[in-house]
Amino acid sequence: VLKKKIAVLAGDGIGPEVCREAIKVLEAVAERFGHQFTFDQQLMGACAIDATDDPLPAQTLRACFEADAVLLGAIGDPKYDNDPSAKVRPEQGLLRLRKSLGLYANIRPVTAYDALLAHSPLKPERISGTDMLIFRELTGGIYFGDKGRTDDGQGAYDHCTYSREEIERIAHRAFQAAETRRRKLTLVDKANVLETSRLWREVVQQIAPQYPEVRVDYLFVDNAAMQVILNPKQFDVILTENMFGDIISDEASVIAGSLGLLPSASVGDQVALFEPIHGSYPQAKGRGIANPIATILSGAMLLEHFGLQEEADAVKAAVQAALDSNILTPELNATSPCSTEQVGNFIAYQV
Amino acid sequence: VLKKKIAVLAGDGIGPEVCREAIKVLEAVAERFGHQFTFDQQLMGACAIDATDDPLPAQTLRACFEADAVLLGAIGDPKYDNDPSAKVRPEQGLLRLRKSLGLYANIRPVTAYDALLAHSPLKPERISGTDMLIFRELTGGIYFGDKGRTDDGQGAYDHCTYSREEIERIAHRAFQAAETRRRKLTLVDKANVLETSRLWREVVQQIAPQYPEVRVDYLFVDNAAMQVILNPKQFDVILTENMFGDIISDEASVIAGSLGLLPSASVGDQVALFEPIHGSYPQAKGRGIANPIATILSGAMLLEHFGLQEEADAVKAAVQAALDSNILTPELNATSPCSTEQVGNFIAYQV
Ligand SMILES: CC(C)[C@H](C(=O)O)[C@@H](O)C(=O)O
Ligand SMILES: CC(C)[C@H](C(=O)O)[C@@H](O)C(=O)O
Repeated sequence: VLKKKIAVLAGDGIGPEVCREAIKVLEAVAERFGHQFTFDQQLMGACAIDATDDPLPAQTLRACFEADAVLLGAIGDPKYDNDPSAKVRPEQGLLRLRKSLGLYANIRPVTAYDALLAHSPLKPERISGTDMLIFRELTGGIYFGDKGRTDDGQGAYDHCTYSREEIERIAHRAFQAAETRRRKLTLVDKANVLETSRLWREVVQQIAPQYPEVRVDYLFVDNAAMQVILNPKQFDVILTENMFGDIISDEASVIAGSLGLLPSASVGDQVALFEPIHGSYPQAKGRGIANPIATILSGAMLLEHFGLQEEADAVKAAVQAALDSNILTPELNATSPCSTEQVGNFIAYQV
Repeated sequence: VLKKKIAVLAGDGIGPEVCREAIKVLEAVAERFGHQFTFDQQLMGACAIDATDDPLPAQTLRACFEADAVLLGAIGDPKYDNDPSAKVRPEQGLLRLRKSLGLYANIRPVTAYDALLAHSPLKPERISGTDMLIFRELTGGIYFGDKGRTDDGQGAYDHCTYSREEIERIAHRAFQAAETRRRKLTLVDKANVLETSRLWREVVQQIAPQYPEVRVDYLFVDNAAMQVILNPKQFDVILTENMFGDIISDEASVIAGSLGLLPSASVGDQVALFEPIHGSYPQAKGRGIANPIATILSGAMLLEHFGLQEEADAVKAAVQAALDSNILTPELNATSPCSTEQVGNFIAYQV
């Protein structure tokens, strides 16, 4: 039996309810394949601020380091968003966690599910067959630079910095992924304006010859924001910095027809973390309408990370069965909707 | 007779050919309505570098200051894009021009033309009726902050700064525009991470009570990148900083079905500037396939700026006639395409 310890940071809003279903599915996998997974639930985000005044308590961070992987729900609470003077914010916990765990590469697959083409705002013929993998740098750039107010109180600043090494390590991962796929890598930057972008382009140009099979392409971020919608099938692997990755990957999520379907993995030097790309969706909290599939598929990525490919495939097949059988939450099935729990039960049962 | 002097910076790539048609239309307007427009052609961008080593020669800037308005085609050349070490770039000319003329507000209308719904990648029912106006801050933020390489040559930085005053002046313009429209203003920012975004939110919250009729809404930029595609009809006026505006407005352009349709105005303290939102599209240069409508509609915005509403409406009606009659360039009419010049001639004739 394979024994693994998974730290669970369910977080805020719908985080706890979607994590519950993902855990259920992982337990079904353990049962069916004879593994032993233990789950260590810890506080992070607004719920951690409420309990401890700290969005990332020391105990939570310790539990993550001691775990074989981390499963995250979602964090964030509107009560902090419209208060520009709030000193402590849920997001700080997430950013500190990414930095502390060295999670420099956030990996987001975007696929168009044929069963859901009708739900996408895009015309089916434009998106059917889309299969891209976005590598977003996650521990550098403007998110982590110096920030503050100017001395006279009349201004504010955020500094964006990147080092050659920060770019190289994620670029190698992206090139390696491209080698196993359709062998195309697109760097998204704003090299006609930003110096950091010029460094990204320089480093990628220097690394490219080590991956002679991979075709490299460069797009300015404004153009990329159009191309992702106009012709998503042109993309295989997209590589980009932190802020552009935040925007472009959320934008690309519309292709799938629901934000509730898209998982992500964040990897680096230490333990890896898996989370749905959606947020805490506070309006839906406790109503049983949140889609657990993104978190369940994040669980599948976690299994792959453990080297359990067959198990991961079983989860993906069970999700596909839910899509094909229309066992779906209201945003994807308005006429005979299932609850968060029903979707989770169906998928766990199918595994 | 009204006498006006218009500086024309046709620029690079398809810039000259689309400007030619816009001038033709403005001359037809002058003739029909009895005005006198003179056009002063000047170099900017890559063509100016080739001729003078300077993307914005002093003579060009002087001509802009002496004009009543500026019409710009497009600038940029791929030979500079993949050379991270290029010292002089066409874009520097554009950025310096914006700064020198104090063009702090870039205004981009995005409308879905019913005649072109079939060309949009989005489903017609999602976009029909879309009518939004994007206010992008144009002379601040990360575009204009300090930038450079670190001393050890291993890193790069770009500084983003905003002052209260830079935010206030464009915010007032956006609120005023919202008052004459559907009275909704959406601020797009990343206030959960960036200090400059928190200052934007603070300033907008402070100004809002002066416009009690306008409903104010806040969206994080990653969410906005989804909402623009998922439900564009929810937007009236969008207000945002420079970099986010670059990305979101180009993204929103896909709604119209072609980038070749969207005009923009850049206004500030001095002379105003009008330009299509598309780039220099070097692959299309000289082939007669570039769509001149975005530049022609930029000419209509220029007429409105001169207070010539009837004249502007005549241009818009002529453009509508071209759309209705399918007198369109190949990207919108693949079976019986017209050339850039034919589209321009038709619209000039209709005015
Ligand atoms: C919550 C926020 C700080 C975060 C980010 O911008 O990184 C989120 O949007 C994400 O993409 O994971
Ligand atoms: C050419 C470039 C510098 C420019 C910008 O990013 O501002 C362009 O993309 C635009 O939107 O006008």
